[in-house]
Order: sequence, then C-alpha cells, then structure tokens
Amino acid sequence: MQASSIQAKFIKIRSNKIFELIVITVIIFSALLVGAKTYDMSPTLITVAKVLDWAITVFFLTEITIRFIAEPRKRDFFKNFWNVFDTLIVFISLIPADDTDMAIIARLVRVFRVLRMISIIPELRLLLTSLVKAMPQLGYVMLLMFIIFYIYAAIGSTLFETINPVLWGDITVSMLTLFRVMTFEDWTDVMYETMEVYPLSWIFYLTFIFLSAFAFLNMVIGIVVNVMEQENANARKELEIESGEPTLTDLANQMSQIQAQINQLLDAKNKSS
Amino acid sequence: MQASSIQAKFIKIRSNKIFELIVITVIIFSALLVGAKTYDMSPTLITVAKVLDWAITVFFLTEITIRFIAEPRKRDFFKNFWNVFDTLIVFISLIPADDTDMAIIARLVRVFRVLRMISIIPELRLLLTSLVKAMPQLGYVMLLMFIIFYIYAAIGSTLFETINPVLWGDITVSMLTLFRVMTFEDWTDVMYETMEVYPLSWIFYLTFIFLSAFAFLNMVIGIVVNVMEQENANARKELEIESGEPTLTDLANQMSQIQAQINQLLDAKNKSS
Amino acid sequence: MQASSIQAKFIKIRSNKIFELIVITVIIFSALLVGAKTYDMSPTLITVAKVLDWAITVFFLTEITIRFIAEPRKRDFFKNFWNVFDTLIVFISLIPADDTDMAIIARLVRVFRVLRMISIIPELRLLLTSLVKAMPQLGYVMLLMFIIFYIYAAIGSTLFETINPVLWGDITVSMLTLFRVMTFEDWTDVMYETMEVYPLSWIFYLTFIFLSAFAFLNMVIGIVVNVMEQENANARKELEIESGEPTLTDLANQMSQIQAQINQLLDAKNKSS
Amino acid sequence: MQASSIQAKFIKIRSNKIFELIVITVIIFSALLVGAKTYDMSPTLITVAKVLDWAITVFFLTEITIRFIAEPRKRDFFKNFWNVFDTLIVFISLIPADDTDMAIIARLVRVFRVLRMISIIPELRLLLTSLVKAMPQLGYVMLLMFIIFYIYAAIGSTLFETINPVLWGDITVSMLTLFRVMTFEDWTDVMYETMEVYPLSWIFYLTFIFLSAFAFLNMVIGIVVNVMEQENANARKELEIESGEPTLTDLANQMSQIQAQINQLLDAKNKSS
Repeated sequence: MQASSIQAKFIKIRSNKIFELIVITVIIFSALLVGAKTYDMSPTLITVAKVLDWAITVFFLTEITIRFIAEPRKRDFFKNFWNVFDTLIVFISLIPADDTDMAIIARLVRVFRVLRMISIIPELRLLLTSLVKAMPQLGYVMLLMFIIFYIYAAIGSTLFETINPVLWGDITVSMLTLFRVMTFEDWTDVMYETMEVYPLSWIFYLTFIFLSAFAFLNMVIGIVVNVMEQENANARKELEIESGEPTLTDLANQMSQIQAQINQLLDAKNKSS
Repeated sequence: MQASSIQAKFIKIRSNKIFELIVITVIIFSALLVGAKTYDMSPTLITVAKVLDWAITVFFLTEITIRFIAEPRKRDFFKNFWNVFDTLIVFISLIPADDTDMAIIARLVRVFRVLRMISIIPELRLLLTSLVKAMPQLGYVMLLMFIIFYIYAAIGSTLFETINPVLWGDITVSMLTLFRVMTFEDWTDVMYETMEVYPLSWIFYLTFIFLSAFAFLNMVIGIVVNVMEQENANARKELEIESGEPTLTDLANQMSQIQAQINQLLDAKNKSS
Repeated sequence: MQASSIQAKFIKIRSNKIFELIVITVIIFSALLVGAKTYDMSPTLITVAKVLDWAITVFFLTEITIRFIAEPRKRDFFKNFWNVFDTLIVFISLIPADDTDMAIIARLVRVFRVLRMISIIPELRLLLTSLVKAMPQLGYVMLLMFIIFYIYAAIGSTLFETINPVLWGDITVSMLTLFRVMTFEDWTDVMYETMEVYPLSWIFYLTFIFLSAFAFLNMVIGIVVNVMEQENANARKELEIESGEPTLTDLANQMSQIQAQINQLLDAKNKSS
Repeated sequence: MQASSIQAKFIKIRSNKIFELIVITVIIFSALLVGAKTYDMSPTLITVAKVLDWAITVFFLTEITIRFIAEPRKRDFFKNFWNVFDTLIVFISLIPADDTDMAIIARLVRVFRVLRMISIIPELRLLLTSLVKAMPQLGYVMLLMFIIFYIYAAIGSTLFETINPVLWGDITVSMLTLFRVMTFEDWTDVMYETMEVYPLSWIFYLTFIFLSAFAFLNMVIGIVVNVMEQENANARKELEIESGEPTLTDLANQMSQIQAQINQLLDAKNKSS
C-alpha cells in the first residue's frame, strides 16, 4: 500500500514541469562540465569538478530510480529504448575510476551523458527515430557502395601495394585511401604517385570517383524522394481534413441519391398512368 | 502648422522615384569608396576619400532625417527593423575617428554601409526575411548537429590532446578542428597524425563524417521540403484562382440544387395525385 | 531569276540530311585538330595541320554563305543568335595570323570553333537556352552573394592586409581569397595565419562560410523549385490531354444541362396541372 | 529422354532456396578470399588460398553449367545480360596463371568475382538497371560538359603549356588538371602558378568552375526531376487503385445516366399529355 503511494507520488514528480526543467538544467550543466574539463584547470578546480561529477551521477541515479518506480509495469520500462539508453549511461558512469588506466575511459563515459540531451528533448528523439527509420531503405544502395569500395580496394591493393604500402598495404587501408579519394582530399597526390608507375592509373581514380559519386547521388535522391513522399501524403491528408471539401466519393454518393429520387418520380409516374 | 507642411513635403520627397535613385547611387558610390580604400592611394586621394566619406555621412544623415520627419507616427519608425538598421549604421559612422586606435574600427563601420544595399532594395529585403523565417524550423537539426560536434570534440580533446595540442587543446579548438574535418580540408593529415598513436582512430573520423553529413543532409532536405511545400501551396491557390475552375464544393452545391428541384417535382406530383 | 534558282537550290542543300552530317563531321574534325595541335608534332604534321585548318575555314565559310543565301529574308538571318554566333567564329578565324604575336590568339580563336557543336545540335542549343533563361530569376540571390563577398573582402582587406598582402592586398584579391575559402581549398591555412594575429578571426571565416553556403543553397533550391514547377505544369497539361478525363468545369456544365432538363419537366408539370 | 530428366532435376536445383544460399555464401567467401590475399600471408596460407581459389572456380563452373542445362532454350541463356556476365567472369578465371607475368592479371580477374554479388541479389540488379536506364537521358548534359572541358583544356594547353608542362602538356593532361580544378583539389596552387605569368588567368579558372558547376547542377537536377516524375506517376496510380475513389470520368458517366433517366421522365410526360 505504502509502495503504491510512493509510486503515485513519483508519477506526479515525473510529469512535473519543474522536475523536467531541473533534469534538463543538470544535463546541460554536466555537458558544460565535460567541456570545462578539456581546459587546463587548477588543482582546486579539478577537485570541484570531481565533486560536481559525483553530484551529477547521484542526481541522475535518483532521477532514473524515480522514473523506474513511477513505471506501472516494470517490464515496459526496459522496452523503451530511451530508458535503457539513460540507465546504461548512468550505470556505466558509476564504475569507479581512480587515477589508474581506467581514468581516461571514465572521462569518455561522462562525455556520453551529453547524449541524454537527445533522450530528454522529444523533438530530437523524433528526429533521430526518423533518421534510423530511413536507414533500412538505403540498405541496398549502401551495399552497392560497399561492393564498389571493396572491388576498387582489392584492385588498388593488388596493383599499387609496392608503390606506397602506407596507402595501399592491405584492403582495409586501401578502402580508407579510397574514402579519402571520394572526399577529394589531396586525391591528386595519391593519383600522381601511382601514375608514375602506371601512367593509365588515372582511369582507376576517375571511374571510382564517377561510380561512387553516382551511388552517393542515388542515395541522396533516395532519401529526398522518401521524405517528399511522406510529406506529400501528410499534406494530402491535412488538406482533405482542413479544407472540408467533399471527396469525389461524396459527390458520387450524392448523385446516387439523385438517381434514387428520379426513380421515385418514375415509379410515381408509372403508377399514376 | 509649419511643421506639418514640412512633413507633407518630406513625405512627397520620400516617395519620389528620383530621390530613391539618388539614395541608391550614393549607397553604391559609398560601397565603391570602401573598395577603393583597400588599394594603395596617394596622399591627395586619401584626402579626397576623407571628404567624400564625410559627404556621404552627411547625405545619409539627411536622408534618415527626412524619412524620420516624414513618418506620421514617430514610434512606428523604430518598429521597422530596417529603419533601426539604417539609423544605427549612419549614427555609428558619425563617431569621430582620427588616426588613433579607433581608425580601423571607423573604417570597418563604413564597410557596413554596403549593407544599406539590402535595406534599400525590396527584393533583397524579402530574400533575407524569408531566410530568417526558415531558420527556427531548422533549430532542432542544428541543435542535434551541435550535440554531435560537442561530443566528438570532448572525445577528441580527451584522447588526442597530448598528440597535437594545437588541434585538440580544448573543446573550442577541437570543434574548429572538427569543422575542418567536416569540410574535408586536409582531414587525412589530422587523421594520420592520431592514427600513429591510436591506429583505430579512423573510426572516430569516419563516424563523425557520416553523422555530420547525415545531419547536414537532413537540414538541406528540411529546407528543400519547406520551400517546396510553400511553393506548392502558392501554386495550388494561383491555379484555383487563375483557371476559374469550380471546386468540388461548388459541384456539391450545384447537386443540392438539383436535389431541391427534384423534390419540388415530387411534391407537385404528390399534390396532383 | 537566276539568283532565286540558286537560292532554291541552297534551301534544298541546307535542309539536306547528308549536308548536315558533313557539317557535323567537319566540326568534330576541327575539334580533333584543335586537340591534336596541343601535342608535339613533327614539322610535316604542322604543315598538314595548317592546310587542314585552312580547308576547314574555307568549308565553314562556304557553309555560312549557303545558309545566308538560302535565307529568304536576309535581315532574319542576323536576328537568329546562333547564325550571328557561327558567322562571328568563322570570320574571326579568317584574320591572317602568321608566326607573329597574333599566332597564339589565332590558335585560341580556332578553339572556339568547337562551340559550333552547340549551335549545330538542337538539343544542346535548347539546353543552353534554358540555362540562360534560368539566370535572371537567380539575379537577386547572386546580388546578395556579391554583397556578402564584397563586405567580407573589405573587412578582410582592412584587417589582414599587413598579415599577408598576397591574399588580402586589395578588395579584388580578397574576393578571390574568399572564393577559395568558399571552395574549402586550404582554407584552414588562410585562417590559421590570421588567427596568430587575431585569435578570434575564426569567427570571420565561419560566419562567411555559413552565409555564403546559405546563399548558395538558396540559389540551388531556387533553381530546383523553378525546374520542378515547370515540369509539374507540363506534366499536368500532358495528363489532362492524354487521359481525356473531363475537367470539373465539364462536370459543372453537364449539371447545368440536368438542371435545364428538370426545369423543362417542372414547366411541363405546371402547364399540365 | 535421359537428358531431359537431368534438365528437370537441374531446374529443380536452380530454383532451390538452399542452392541459392550456398551460391551466395560461396560468392561472399570468394570476396573475403580476395580481401585476405591483400594481407601478408605465410607460405602455408598462400597454398591454402590457392586450393580454395581452385575450389571456388570449380564450384562456379558447376553452378553455371547447372544453370545452362536447366535453361529450356539454350539461346535465351545468352540473351540474359547477367548470365553472359557470370559466364565471362567464371571462364576468364579458368585461364591458367602461374607465377609468371600473368599472375597479377589472374588476381585482378578473381577480384571481379565480387561483382557476382550484384548478379545474384535481385535488388542490386534492379538498382543497377535503373542507373543504366537513367544514363541516356543525361547524355546531352554530359556532352555539353565534355565540350566545356575540351575547350578549356585546349585554351589551357595553348596558354599554360610553357608554364607547367606536367599539368598543361597536352589536351588529355589538361582535361585531367581541369577535373582536379573541378573537384577543388589544390586548385589555387594551379591558379597561382599561372597567375604569375598571366595575372588575369583567374578569369579562366572562375569561369570554368562556374560553367562546370552549373552543368553539373543541371545534371543532378535532371536526375532528381526524372526520379521524382516516375515516383509521382507510380504514386498516382497506386492512389487511384488503393483508394477506390471514382474518377471524374466515372462521375460524368453517372451524370449521363441521370440525364437519360430524366429524358425517360420527359418522354413519359409527353406521351401522357
């Protein structure tokens, strides 16, 4: 009975606007702390930062606990991706990390607290969800792109390995070099080097650039078309609802009524005559 | 009485085409003067430029005064953003700036006079207004992008600070470095440097490039979709007005009339029989 | 009488498919000759090239003469932009150019013969016409971009001239440097150099990049929207024509007929009763 | 009779899901083998790789044979592009290549086996087919772009050959340099070099960048519009089918029925009176 009253209280807290504001403030503050730690700090400030860090961890732990207890069915809590996400970030930062080898990892984990910004702001959560949803539709274009990269990396590694093992040593390094070529980053330096041995190797680079640019373009257009279609569908629905204009089906129904009325007239006529 | 007659005269001047042309000419001339001053000039020319500068300031002051007096309600004058903008630019250039430390600032202020070009040409003003209007809708994508930059900058600063403090010294510098990576400007040099210490750091750069490119793409698509929707809405309205085609609602109304007529027939029938 | 019979013959030639094919072949051949001349050639080949060059000039001159004589009204010939274009290219290449100072200019003029490819292929002509038509609509965005460049170049030249006069010497050079920054070409080198004197000068570069990118994006979207609108308008018209579907106006007319018929009924009723 | 029973068995195998899965697995495995060979391997591993290579070749040969025998009409087998493609890849890798000069070519041929990934996955095949279909529509834009490149390369080669023969030696090299300029890859280095001799040569580069960017933009917009149109056409058809909404033609037909009914009424009226 008591537990349920606590739960009721926590549900109240969870949906309280002030509580939400405090959580956002603490998240922003923890983000600023992460940034501040990248500057040189006096020993005093470092101690202050450690205390604040500890305070933030405690606050986050409390917040998650409140949310967990406020959840009517405990199973559902972990069915929500963002709850799992928040819990993970909080619990990982609980791992003790003294000035040992783990110190740097501990610092990195604290950086990910900034990601809680996404989980707390509904608009950002929506944005990310829509991005993830767009992903699988692009799967095949990305597979095609990977195949293009793989084949060119295999050819590059086979032909150019002896010319520059740093750039073309094995297939992984070659793929990184090809990504560099795709971003046009000093790609001519890479090309001129191999052209000294194989004067026709510019064909390799130009065909690669054309193919990857074409596949990339295809990907972008795919996303644009997807987004447009959704927007159009939404717009069409909104238009129909907002304008209150009758649909063609409405008109057809109205006509059927007219036909029924005329039939009535005809029947009356036939009877009377 | 006299004041109001001056006002009437000034309202006439303000809406005079020739007055407007003279203002535009002076603005263009002041822009050319700004450009000319960046070249080496003989002492005579410098004196001439100073005199012209002073003349332009006086002209602008006169023009703003005319506009201000011509305004029926003085409060409304400062409610218009462009009036405030023009007044500010003119008044700041009134601040005396001899060959002291202020000289360079005075020169910079005069550069902003070129911006009056935007306030005087209605089409440019419209363009800028529409750009500013598009901004808030992109707010969340930009926030997401900032979070991505912030997290990667924090990670980069934590891991790579000892490798190259110039690029990864603190979070601000790291964000600048990441912007550089995003523009693909010698990004491989930055990467190869950190790969010597952390051979897997290419994952850091590639995930960053993909995430930021994806967020950027999202922003662009957001703008395109927004613009398209507005254009479509406008086009639809224009089409309806221009073509003079009846709407579906018009047709439904016409049908209701038909139904009323048939009902009349039926009533007449019933009465007669 | 005789002149007109020659004209009739020439009109026949002009619209002859074989004649057109020969012209295209000669144009392509002249383009190849232009390309060939950029390679090192033996003295014999140079002589051959000169003869061929002369032959091509004669051929083009003949072709233009045929077209001119075939034109019924001589005035209309020069009203067509492409005729003027062709005539100019042919006549300029008639200017004698021995191995004097004019030799290089003469060679350049011959390069422009390749442009005749555009004037002879209708699809390319159409493409170019549509590009030129799209231009004026982008006028204001380009003016805005120029103003952005001008203001930043003036500021850059004022502040950074003493740091690197090669990049920021005067407003023209500064605009070229800014264009380089806009293409992201080693822009960080330019920035790091000025940041040593003005540590906050990254604000100058970042705001410039954002503003110019935004204006550029605006321009691209403007073109896309324009093209889309035209395509949609065309598609709508084609759809209406092809599908043979009645318009809403047709339906409204049909309904008016129905109403007239019912009125007839009502009249008959009234008369009979 | 026996041959036909084998054929029947092979048709069964060909359409067997497990058979398809095995083929995909072997293709992926052969792709991994291609990648593995780019790493340094111990002599034992090299022997293993050779054996695996031989095994894969035998497997592919068997697979193609099964497909060929399973084909009812042998002619149709080679009418399918992908069958020809698969057969070619398999047969070329049959060419014996010991550690002679042919070894490197043999290795390259094996790389192309990865392309069988495209021929085996229908979605990738579809993607590639649609890409190839989009090509011819872009033909004229690409021709225009080639003409731009050709003219600028001819001018560049004529004017700048003496400045830097490596970049502007002949028309082919000049076109490669211009492609580099188009990708903004250290293009200012190329420009600054020629500006020392021809101070106005920045006009050459800027006009080239604008023209090529414009033509490229045109190409991208062309693709986008094409894709959009197809999508819109598909969407419209789907909408009509799915929604079951009557078309305007349906409504017009229904109205004609009403008119016929009213005419019946009028006829009855006329008869009775």
